[in-house]
Amino acid sequence: MADVDTRQRIVTAMIEQLRRQGYAATGVKQLAQAAAAPTGSIYHHFRGGKREVADRALSQSADAYLELLLHVLGQYDDPVVGVEGAFREAAEVVEQSGWMNMCPVGTVLGEVADVEPELRETGDRIFRAWVDAGTAYYEHHGLPRADAREFTYALVAALEGAFILARTQRSAEPVLAAGRTLALALRGLLVSPRGSRAAGSAR
Amino acid sequence: MADVDTRQRIVTAMIEQLRRQGYAATGVKQLAQAAAAPTGSIYHHFRGGKREVADRALSQSADAYLELLLHVLGQYDDPVVGVEGAFREAAEVVEQSGWMNMCPVGTVLGEVADVEPELRETGDRIFRAWVDAGTAYYEHHGLPRADAREFTYALVAALEGAFILARTQRSAEPVLAAGRTLALALRGLLVSPRGSRAAGSAR
Repeated sequence: MADVDTRQRIVTAMIEQLRRQGYAATGVKQLAQAAAAPTGSIYHHFRGGKREVADRALSQSADAYLELLLHVLGQYDDPVVGVEGAFREAAEVVEQSGWMNMCPVGTVLGEVADVEPELRETGDRIFRAWVDAGTAYYEHHGLPRADAREFTYALVAALEGAFILARTQRSAEPVLAAGRTLALALRGLLVSPRGSRAAGSAR
Repeated sequence: MADVDTRQRIVTAMIEQLRRQGYAATGVKQLAQAAAAPTGSIYHHFRGGKREVADRALSQSADAYLELLLHVLGQYDDPVVGVEGAFREAAEVVEQSGWMNMCPVGTVLGEVADVEPELRETGDRIFRAWVDAGTAYYEHHGLPRADAREFTYALVAALEGAFILARTQRSAEPVLAAGRTLALALRGLLVSPRGSRAAGSAR
């Protein structure tokens, strides 16, 4: 039980470090201090050391983040209102946190995609899971599958990019602007889906 | 003259390092090696050391990147076709490069926004310049200023986020999806601007 606690404390500490300063800046010694655990316990719990802890931290953050996003979207009956509302709630959370990084996935992958192949593969799995979940959500709300997938990709991309802009500029404006723009695109897709148009013209 | 060359070689080397591995992973010694310059010459040209070089590298990349984006957008008469085309060209370039990071601005700011206040301020200036230029471009193409600004924020956010997804997934799909989604939103804005609607209702 104590072992499970220590293991999770290490992962939680890594999530915090990754959010704050990224992968390269985070050392095993600093991680152990942040987790209030001896340095050796990192290697006891994670034979792959820092990289394996980061892998676990990214996956765990990704699950939590996806659950949160789906929960927020699920509060709205109208998906167009929902996308604008979700970005507005995200903007409020980031602002109230003092412009903290909410989720290390996008920023750490941006940092390490070219130099850490194993973490890149983990990131690939994470983004695939996010896009699959979003695609199912928007299909359920009436979009053809291809449109649902395309829109979800745009949503995830805009959210990740808008967080970087908002933190850099200490302004909610980029997140609000991205949400409003996406809502407009979604309304257009719901009125005249591209997926079904393409299917229709192929008949 | 040789001094100017060395100075620029250091900045260029920093741009490459930042694109590849980010800020924290890049040390002064490695930077000097990459620039084929003695370590001391870094401090000779940049009293602020690594941080000052990174500052210059981000600003220089940002100028080049903005010029490129405006050049690509300028090839199209129709701004709706242009936004989809620009994202398609960006997707091709990233794919042909082997999924390299094209511009360090978004990824480095994502990495350091919470821990490097000076670089964050530089990033703030950069994003402001990008958004001002994009706003002027879309105003020129018929959008009310508020709509032009909002759309530009969404465009920059989606482009930055889509690059991270594309590099992680080694797939052009996120960039293409973001471009098509933004084009749809832009068409909606051009047909019924929100800016002028708001102005109308305020009268």
